[in-house]
Amino acid sequence: MNSSQLFDNIVKKRSFLCVGLDTETEKIPEFLKNRRDPIFEFNKKIIDATVEYAVAYKPNVAFYESAGPAGWTALEKTVKYIRKEYPDLFIIADAKRGDIGNTSKMYAKEFFENMAFDAVTVAPYMGEDSVTPFLSYNDKWAILLVLTSNKGAGDFQYHNEDGIMLFERVLTVSQKWGNNNNIMYVVGATRAEMLKDIRQIAPDHFLLVPGVGAQGGSLKEVSKYGLNNRCGLLVNSSRGIIFADNSGNFDKAAGEKARELQQEMEVYLSERKLI
Amino acid sequence: MNSSQLFDNIVKKRSFLCVGLDTETEKIPEFLKNRRDPIFEFNKKIIDATVEYAVAYKPNVAFYESAGPAGWTALEKTVKYIRKEYPDLFIIADAKRGDIGNTSKMYAKEFFENMAFDAVTVAPYMGEDSVTPFLSYNDKWAILLVLTSNKGAGDFQYHNEDGIMLFERVLTVSQKWGNNNNIMYVVGATRAEMLKDIRQIAPDHFLLVPGVGAQGGSLKEVSKYGLNNRCGLLVNSSRGIIFADNSGNFDKAAGEKARELQQEMEVYLSERKLI
Repeated sequence: MNSSQLFDNIVKKRSFLCVGLDTETEKIPEFLKNRRDPIFEFNKKIIDATVEYAVAYKPNVAFYESAGPAGWTALEKTVKYIRKEYPDLFIIADAKRGDIGNTSKMYAKEFFENMAFDAVTVAPYMGEDSVTPFLSYNDKWAILLVLTSNKGAGDFQYHNEDGIMLFERVLTVSQKWGNNNNIMYVVGATRAEMLKDIRQIAPDHFLLVPGVGAQGGSLKEVSKYGLNNRCGLLVNSSRGIIFADNSGNFDKAAGEKARELQQEMEVYLSERKLI
Repeated sequence: MNSSQLFDNIVKKRSFLCVGLDTETEKIPEFLKNRRDPIFEFNKKIIDATVEYAVAYKPNVAFYESAGPAGWTALEKTVKYIRKEYPDLFIIADAKRGDIGNTSKMYAKEFFENMAFDAVTVAPYMGEDSVTPFLSYNDKWAILLVLTSNKGAGDFQYHNEDGIMLFERVLTVSQKWGNNNNIMYVVGATRAEMLKDIRQIAPDHFLLVPGVGAQGGSLKEVSKYGLNNRCGLLVNSSRGIIFADNSGNFDKAAGEKARELQQEMEVYLSERKLI
């Protein structure tokens, strides 16, 4: 999917919501646990209940890997299900990969060819040749970690050379490797005030913003500093949506949480005259 | 495995060789490709042929992931095989993971509990809480990327704040999170001259050194600057060993390459009076 198609979907759904499918086996409602593939069954119901309000889905690969080969199968089935039922959704493998060139190439093959993801999150520490293998596919994306939402973000991301912080260098240098049709950036919602600075360096790129909800970030702040004239934001919520309730109504509760976020997003999109 | 046991094995085998199991399906000898599990069959033969000369094995997870659920099964079988047949080997998941705390915890669970790896390579970009979940297991290790062997290493790892480069900051800061019995560091052999500097900051830690062989690093240089009084090195060779030959004798050729490296290592260990 290219950025125009993504923007069209945002306008159509009046939403820039990404639903994080961080499906922890232990947290799946009890009545689903004796099904043949509880992870997939859970995801399917979550997707069906939230799809009206979301433009993107983001399984965090860790939660599937930790369930072994069955977890991988559930991940593959989830991607296939979305592709078949809702072909206009943007699907992100939150994998935070990054390795020497020939190895990153294997990861790109896995996520883009074997599974039909649109994008993969990539850790930038190893530099150019660890990222470029993800940029050689048409309409596929690398989403680089820039400023993350966790506490440890401060340990290295602010390392400051002559007034340029590491995360700013990642933004600047990586723009030489690709463009705003194959690179996005991860910026945690818990650093919303930094979005102003980031929009100076990368005015046109899409930003993937995790940390709204369970991690405490504010959608209002993120939208204020992050929206550009093609929206330019995908705001993710994971636990706040998918584990809103663990009864037989978990999917309805998830849909309700997604709808709340969508309605707030609609206000901000409308204020900016994007819809 | 703790560092004393690892050192004992190094002394016993007169080797600090790690064999990288970067098993690309396409490069497996033809006659193995119609077996039920070609990746595992290949690994098994490589391990049997090289185990006399090696103390550690390091599957790069990318190569297994890219083969889908069957790849994961092959990885699990490989680890189980090593654990059963050669219990004193050190097994590293070269996964370069790293995510927010609750997610890194899932990766740690996968590699340390579900599969019995001794160590996981971790990308440090997200800081402390992305690393500490790997440090809470007895006799298990996080191996942090510090200075990598690829071309892109220069893009961010040398980012310089008041004379402290990013890779040096990773070395210094991370030592507060753990100790030399649960943290190792990745330092590419192609940066052997930097090992002198690294040994100033981390004199006692084990260093995992990839890049000897196909990537052009020199074992002599690495040993000169990297060896400490408990060896402190695991030097990895992947393609140079496992794909030395693709005939019916591929395993013998691999064994021969591993033996050459072991014999050179024996000289350096002996010069330092470590054996």
